[in-house]
Amino acid sequence: MPKANPRPWWARAGLAYARQHLCIAGHSVADLAAQHSSPLYLYDETRVHENLGRLHAAFDQAALPHRIFYAMKSNRHPELLEGLRRLGRCGVDTCSPAEVAAARAAGFAAKDISFTGTSLSDRDLAALLEHPGLILNLDSLHDIKRVAQLAPGRSVGLRINPGLGTGYRSHQRLRYAGAQDTKFGLHREQFPAALRAIRQGGLIIDGLHFHTGCGFLSPQLKGLKGIFRACTGFIEKLPRLRYLNVGGGLGIPLDATDEPLDVVAWTQLLKTHFGDWADEIWCEPGDYLVKDAGLLVLEVNTVETKGRTLFAGVNGGFSLHPEPAFYQLPIHPVPTRQPGARARLQPTTIAGNINEAHDLLHQDAMLPKLRNGDLLAFLNAGGYGAAMASRHCLRGEFQEVVLPAVPPPPRK
Amino acid sequence: MPKANPRPWWARAGLAYARQHLCIAGHSVADLAAQHSSPLYLYDETRVHENLGRLHAAFDQAALPHRIFYAMKSNRHPELLEGLRRLGRCGVDTCSPAEVAAARAAGFAAKDISFTGTSLSDRDLAALLEHPGLILNLDSLHDIKRVAQLAPGRSVGLRINPGLGTGYRSHQRLRYAGAQDTKFGLHREQFPAALRAIRQGGLIIDGLHFHTGCGFLSPQLKGLKGIFRACTGFIEKLPRLRYLNVGGGLGIPLDATDEPLDVVAWTQLLKTHFGDWADEIWCEPGDYLVKDAGLLVLEVNTVETKGRTLFAGVNGGFSLHPEPAFYQLPIHPVPTRQPGARARLQPTTIAGNINEAHDLLHQDAMLPKLRNGDLLAFLNAGGYGAAMASRHCLRGEFQEVVLPAVPPPPRK
Repeated sequence: MPKANPRPWWARAGLAYARQHLCIAGHSVADLAAQHSSPLYLYDETRVHENLGRLHAAFDQAALPHRIFYAMKSNRHPELLEGLRRLGRCGVDTCSPAEVAAARAAGFAAKDISFTGTSLSDRDLAALLEHPGLILNLDSLHDIKRVAQLAPGRSVGLRINPGLGTGYRSHQRLRYAGAQDTKFGLHREQFPAALRAIRQGGLIIDGLHFHTGCGFLSPQLKGLKGIFRACTGFIEKLPRLRYLNVGGGLGIPLDATDEPLDVVAWTQLLKTHFGDWADEIWCEPGDYLVKDAGLLVLEVNTVETKGRTLFAGVNGGFSLHPEPAFYQLPIHPVPTRQPGARARLQPTTIAGNINEAHDLLHQDAMLPKLRNGDLLAFLNAGGYGAAMASRHCLRGEFQEVVLPAVPPPPRK
Repeated sequence: MPKANPRPWWARAGLAYARQHLCIAGHSVADLAAQHSSPLYLYDETRVHENLGRLHAAFDQAALPHRIFYAMKSNRHPELLEGLRRLGRCGVDTCSPAEVAAARAAGFAAKDISFTGTSLSDRDLAALLEHPGLILNLDSLHDIKRVAQLAPGRSVGLRINPGLGTGYRSHQRLRYAGAQDTKFGLHREQFPAALRAIRQGGLIIDGLHFHTGCGFLSPQLKGLKGIFRACTGFIEKLPRLRYLNVGGGLGIPLDATDEPLDVVAWTQLLKTHFGDWADEIWCEPGDYLVKDAGLLVLEVNTVETKGRTLFAGVNGGFSLHPEPAFYQLPIHPVPTRQPGARARLQPTTIAGNINEAHDLLHQDAMLPKLRNGDLLAFLNAGGYGAAMASRHCLRGEFQEVVLPAVPPPPRK
């Protein structure tokens, strides 16, 4: 029977066992769960800022002028937004007028907010145009014409669908661009008409926006090259741009076997393909900044073998975090008390408390014997978890706690 | 090119075009959308009560003593719950302590509320036992032992997993029982231990509960027979029961080609298999009562061909209604203004306003030419729509309006 690994694949500074207790940002997870109640989301703000710093460093290493906009749809917790605004190293990417309002409420200026939405109503557009300076990436011919009517002379970006995409295990659901027509962006055959509409409407093209995938890691970088080449066909039709926005989609390892994204290789790739075409390269990471900064802490209740499967029930389900059930993206359960070096691990399926069969938070996780009252921390729960929570079965109650980044002590 | 059908498959008393306007419960949908704002859910209470009445009539035709519990997780709108309580023809089925509290708040007595949940915490069980008389179906050996400790002598039901199931197009996600082990209910090999735990804990078995599928229609009735036979193996080990609860899962047609469920044939099947084993047959319909009583009204904005696909954007997405994106269950879009008899229909894909590629509310619906501002009413949106809504992308705002059932005028 497999034994517990004293150095698990996910351990890092800020998330590891210390004296048998799982700790995040210097706090014992079990202590935090005792202090607040479970279901509990914990967000390590230091880790968010580190992830942002690593991305900036990779751009700097490639000597690539750039801007980063945090895609707030992955996690809109006000304290995280305010913390990023105070840090001053990124803008915010939004996709609805209400997200723009939330970014403004967190203190971001309109010029530091990009908007890249779809299926916009007249009401949406009117609300967006109330924020002069907002960076607006238009998704359709229809939107170009309406903005030209409402705000002639305005600077806009165009969201382009390059017809190719890559991502998390090429998950069908997460293909933003690819063989099947997607709703996003201006398709190749629409581009000439888009440029005409821009000209006729007296708008100014500031930049182009490409969303090329979702959750890509180093093995997908090779595939990105082809996509970037496809993008060049659009760019070369325009005078030098202020920005080229390559969207988000930067992935993080979700399993022990996932190879992390080499962000330096990625920025080099951006430099090679896009460096000469625009003043700045922009990007919109969501998960890359917040996903591994978050834990979802749940309490075990029923532990029972049914058929050939050992199930451990917990006090939460897909109403709190939809990714395992609906996207087949794993969130790994980790005991908050470290299993002893001799602990025997057995495959355990974590059953949520929603009355639907597919409400399994993890299947066949290798775990020590669990008991009623044990706490499990689910890794990589910081993005698209709380942000997508529902009240299904009235099981939607949860707490969210941000563990604030502490500024470094002043130098002596 | 196909023409509009003057008598569409979904039309019925209470939902049809009248003078070119789509009407529900005697109201013009467009007028209601003007009065309230879109996104708008409309619920026809008369239809809910009719669906309930049809089910009672089928049981009565089979001379089968019975009780019906409405599965409130499909739609927990307080006015619908209160309306059902006033009607007095059903109880409520719940799956969380908060649902029990909501049912109590709507005026249901504990004895008219059944609870059939899973992965229950000690806190959940303590909260449930605060309602004496609540009908409690236990899902695990663990729960039996805990209830025996907390409430010795109590009457309980046992939720059984018969190891077989059927449902909506045999959708993998919706298999509640079947070849793969599911988390639900006591499995066959646990049953002797369950009976021992009941005896040792001084509990009384009032009934058995089987959930055998989800969304079954007439073609699936044949498959139900085998499942019912599998259930008999459990029942015959017990003295005569007060109730046999066959769960929910009664489906409704979601497409023109779906054959409706013959509820009379279903109750005859129940009579044949279970009539001699229990005083009453109980069931827990959710969708069957509310799904076809609800419309989701959205407004078209962007209409544009991208690649080979005609997309029509709308002011809502899977954050409002998850079934098309996550369960591949259709909600058909119907124009609120009737297409003329000569109107040409073309395949149109309805794109939601959530920034995810799979946020399509319907693919290739045959619709007349759509324009910005047109309203579409999505059929069969009354169940698992609003109940599962999230605030993803901060696009979660919507209105819900119950069109109340009018009591029949007093006889002269």
